[in-house]
Amino acid sequence: MISIWAPDGVAEVGRGDDLADHLLPLVELADGDIVCVTSKVVSKAEGRVAADDRADAIVRETRRLVARRGPLVIVVNRLGLTMAAAGVDASNVEQGQVLLLPEDPDGTARRLRSAIAARTAANVGVLVTDTAGRAWREGQTDFAIGAAGLRVLDDHAGRTDPYGNTLVVTAPAVADELAGAAELASGKLGRRPFAVIRGRADLVLPPREHGPGAETLVRPEGGDLFGLGSREAVIAALRRSGIDQAVFGSATQTEELRALLADLTGADVRSTGDGIEVASDDPRSRWVAEVAAYAHGWLGEDTSDAEVSRILLRPATP
Amino acid sequence: MISIWAPDGVAEVGRGDDLADHLLPLVELADGDIVCVTSKVVSKAEGRVAADDRADAIVRETRRLVARRGPLVIVVNRLGLTMAAAGVDASNVEQGQVLLLPEDPDGTARRLRSAIAARTAANVGVLVTDTAGRAWREGQTDFAIGAAGLRVLDDHAGRTDPYGNTLVVTAPAVADELAGAAELASGKLGRRPFAVIRGRADLVLPPREHGPGAETLVRPEGGDLFGLGSREAVIAALRRSGIDQAVFGSATQTEELRALLADLTGADVRSTGDGIEVASDDPRSRWVAEVAAYAHGWLGEDTSDAEVSRILLRPATP
Repeated sequence: MISIWAPDGVAEVGRGDDLADHLLPLVELADGDIVCVTSKVVSKAEGRVAADDRADAIVRETRRLVARRGPLVIVVNRLGLTMAAAGVDASNVEQGQVLLLPEDPDGTARRLRSAIAARTAANVGVLVTDTAGRAWREGQTDFAIGAAGLRVLDDHAGRTDPYGNTLVVTAPAVADELAGAAELASGKLGRRPFAVIRGRADLVLPPREHGPGAETLVRPEGGDLFGLGSREAVIAALRRSGIDQAVFGSATQTEELRALLADLTGADVRSTGDGIEVASDDPRSRWVAEVAAYAHGWLGEDTSDAEVSRILLRPATP
Repeated sequence: MISIWAPDGVAEVGRGDDLADHLLPLVELADGDIVCVTSKVVSKAEGRVAADDRADAIVRETRRLVARRGPLVIVVNRLGLTMAAAGVDASNVEQGQVLLLPEDPDGTARRLRSAIAARTAANVGVLVTDTAGRAWREGQTDFAIGAAGLRVLDDHAGRTDPYGNTLVVTAPAVADELAGAAELASGKLGRRPFAVIRGRADLVLPPREHGPGAETLVRPEGGDLFGLGSREAVIAALRRSGIDQAVFGSATQTEELRALLADLTGADVRSTGDGIEVASDDPRSRWVAEVAAYAHGWLGEDTSDAEVSRILLRPATP
């Protein structure tokens, strides 16, 4: 049996606040409880509020671009997390301000855990949670960006099921499942930034043993298969290698390029006033046309997706 | 307050079993409860057990390949789900058998919901859950592949936060968070395929209104930015367009190709007995070299990753 509650009545959290001061009067913690706190109030307490432009803040929090489509930009951020808008948030703050993710969420979790241990008898685990989309699923789920005193992966490696098969699914990311469960209790609209989960004391580490943190849930760079969006990977590889110039550089006239692209992609390709229209639903044809357009300087790194569509792409089916 | 329990004592589920027969003697359901059942026992009840080779089963369940690395193959499966091994499972079944995902998990959820409604007074929501990895996170989480009588997305579009900002995160994928919460109560090793979640009756739809199902959580093809792995996108675009032949086709001698690749990638490229060694940590250089190797017939569609590495790739840093 697992129970989750998210106390009402949390006061507005301000810069410099001690999160334990906010939480402890509202809950009765027991050994083995898991305390979840949203990154939002951590950021407020830690003064991670910026009164500047959201776009500028995103650039500052970005380690590298992963994919872009229209206003949506997905990056690997400073913490190694792959997130839309680098995790910069403009909701639940004063208008005109943006919230940056905590400087060091695992550190925050460790400090909060220690504060709770110092002021109660309870040995708890602590999670700092945030919200993100997924590559192939609609909607967003909450996940763990900071952890202390918790096994974040419930590692089954080498264990066997009751039939004697070695388990292929070896490591449920329990910290992320706990974060999602906390979101179910907290909701997005109310002022319930804390949740307490009871019933998985087996995941909580002994006192003062904080464990490796939520950082271990981040796939290392190069360790994943989706380090760039599909389109971005094609463009990056061809530009990096100069193949864009090797293939498209000699076609100096628009008509030459049109014929070359029609030949290469098998699509219906037409010249327009300021570009080339490729009628195809096959994304691979579009990526190749896009590479050609970059090679000819029609598109730059910063060309918006709307502009790319105007210059270049028309779906074959309306 | 949310509570989740996963009853012990569930009997072994066999082909043709009524899942309600297994569940109802073990729990006291109330209006607004959410019943979660793992796809595993659904598949067993529906006879989705195949006594054949796992690799063959994966091919049959696959709609298209997304990415491959060594033994790991990620595909869009028959249900539109992007999953390793197409969701084919060899754990918790008799050795030598594999489990396929249910034929129609939303349909299963609707039937189970109706059976529960017919035999108890309770109006519940039903989820069919499965387990999958994520693009950028270690470990696996449970998610919803079937749903009935449940709002799967808790849509906040157009709502404002207490500060008057329009909420940017508009739709928590609550069905996936519920599935993850159920996993926390069930675990992977025991025989606890059912979980009951109480406390989010607001998500449960009126009797006989089953809602759109978990299918709505699947991003439509072409609607995501990660429809192919980064490497697969490069290879697909170049082969599709014939650029691989246009660039590499004229280099008939290994030495010509070696020089061309060294020139294109800026990497240290050497001829070996049966291929070309590209010393680079830059994945973009590797993708280009891989395309060249495909163009020359050194690599085929089915060449294993180990073979690719042997013929082609050497990291610059050990």
